[in-house]
Amino acid sequence: MSKVIVDGFGGDNAPAEVLKGCRMAMDELGASILLVGDEGKLRAAAQETGVSLEGMELLHAPDVLTMEDDPTDIRRAKRESSMAVGLRALAEGKGDAFVSGGNTGALAVGATLYVKRMAGVKRAALATAVPCDGGCYLLLDAGANAECRPEMLAQFGVMGSVYMERVMGIQKPRVGLVNVGAEEHKGGETQRAAYQLLKEAPVHFVGNVEARDIPAGAADVCVCDGFTGNVVLKLTEGLAQSLMGKVKGLFLASPVTKLAALALRGGIRELKTQMDYSEYGGAPLMGIARPVIKAHGSSNAKAFKNAIRQAVTFVESGANGEMERQLAQTAAE
Amino acid sequence: MSKVIVDGFGGDNAPAEVLKGCRMAMDELGASILLVGDEGKLRAAAQETGVSLEGMELLHAPDVLTMEDDPTDIRRAKRESSMAVGLRALAEGKGDAFVSGGNTGALAVGATLYVKRMAGVKRAALATAVPCDGGCYLLLDAGANAECRPEMLAQFGVMGSVYMERVMGIQKPRVGLVNVGAEEHKGGETQRAAYQLLKEAPVHFVGNVEARDIPAGAADVCVCDGFTGNVVLKLTEGLAQSLMGKVKGLFLASPVTKLAALALRGGIRELKTQMDYSEYGGAPLMGIARPVIKAHGSSNAKAFKNAIRQAVTFVESGANGEMERQLAQTAAE
Repeated sequence: MSKVIVDGFGGDNAPAEVLKGCRMAMDELGASILLVGDEGKLRAAAQETGVSLEGMELLHAPDVLTMEDDPTDIRRAKRESSMAVGLRALAEGKGDAFVSGGNTGALAVGATLYVKRMAGVKRAALATAVPCDGGCYLLLDAGANAECRPEMLAQFGVMGSVYMERVMGIQKPRVGLVNVGAEEHKGGETQRAAYQLLKEAPVHFVGNVEARDIPAGAADVCVCDGFTGNVVLKLTEGLAQSLMGKVKGLFLASPVTKLAALALRGGIRELKTQMDYSEYGGAPLMGIARPVIKAHGSSNAKAFKNAIRQAVTFVESGANGEMERQLAQTAAE
Repeated sequence: MSKVIVDGFGGDNAPAEVLKGCRMAMDELGASILLVGDEGKLRAAAQETGVSLEGMELLHAPDVLTMEDDPTDIRRAKRESSMAVGLRALAEGKGDAFVSGGNTGALAVGATLYVKRMAGVKRAALATAVPCDGGCYLLLDAGANAECRPEMLAQFGVMGSVYMERVMGIQKPRVGLVNVGAEEHKGGETQRAAYQLLKEAPVHFVGNVEARDIPAGAADVCVCDGFTGNVVLKLTEGLAQSLMGKVKGLFLASPVTKLAALALRGGIRELKTQMDYSEYGGAPLMGIARPVIKAHGSSNAKAFKNAIRQAVTFVESGANGEMERQLAQTAAE
């Protein structure tokens, strides 16, 4: 089984929940783990939380890169952080994939610097699975590159398609370009050029997708620049929260509606779970030579376990090799 | 009272619902109306729907610009359409404001061509009131300009602020720049430059607003380019629909939950109304020398009446004069 390198000090609940998640992944999934971080602190946290380190490899890293650090700090001031040490361990082949719940920007910079991009890839993109009617869609770039050239968007489409097929098990994923209208000529110059490139790419391109149709599941892969992706992701989150708050308000209106809420309790809980995108595992960084997964910053043990599982599937699916093959094909045309 | 010029053939339900809306505006609000369109067809529609034309002025226009027409057609092929004739009537002072439920792109092109922009305005922007917790916020540009320069965004902030204060009655509106993070350096070059301009502008600038915080009402005026605005507006619409569908699904699960739905019926209806942005009237085109309002394409008589009321308020508030004054002040700094 492939070995997953885990950042012991990434995320709001590190290192306790990371440790627990690693333990769960080993016990429940049979995963091999290389946990990175200050060894003394990791051992102390293990003792405090009662988590056994048996069979878990540790790799010492004296420093921590925080959410407040500038992403480029990973190159200098924080090059001995658990994130940087873990990424170099991945580059050196000490493990097959890397999982971190830490600073997203730093992870993108560090992965590109230490692990490098796959051959031919212009920029790495952050891909996030977002809940929609009937399941979830993959949104990329979800925030790594505010501005994108058309060729970058086309590559995101190819990589996203391979990921959805190989890792998420979606047959012939529908790839859509997020745009302001369905017609081919819509949007700015970037969108118009990306449309033409995606039409020629080896993917099932379904054309432009309007934001109105995204929540209904109009595409399995939604391609856009990182600015737009951030807006889509965060607005989805904010609106779901606001609307659930309003529904809750309805229930609290009177004794009768409170009774009604009781009847609906199970369904509401399920609905909340459906809408919580942290349930869908971590966000893969697409285009890096080896699998790198960004776990949600607020991940608990179960979320870390899920991200580790996702990393294993990513490695064993051979998705990266297939992406390289298809990207080479795209470039050659 | 000011006179409103109305496009008799704009929108999915024209001319019947337009006619009824004009009648309601005259009878209930005491508005003066100049209705534009094929006179024979308007008279026939009035007879068929039983709407009295008494006191309503008609202005003949032989042609109709449809949703399928290219926006630039308003300059040539469709220059005798009700929209084009109405806009020229506004430019000539035959009325004080123009309302149309027709093709948005054509309205923006036509208003700029025939009515002209206010002094110093770089581009006209479409502004839409979008429901949020505790009321609504003004989103601009909601789709007129896919790409925007920083100075355009700063002007949108000034115009949106004046509109919210003068027309919507919001004291000291909070102006936010839609961005991918709260910090001043976030986003692309355009956002960083716009941030600096908005800081100096005569508005209550609250800095960057992340998409996650928009539905909670983080700002009264949300400034962005038309691509982002379209995504925010349409995603809000699509998500509300998807989530309401899921809530409905909960209610249909069993006889008990169906009973619960009965108890909540009134509240749900109110919630739907709250989330329906067509309830908040039409979308003003900001930066045009005289008030132009885009009514929602699916407007019924009541929505047209509301758009006419909004046009009257826009005229009588003196908002355009105040915008010109503040924009001149911005430019002079």
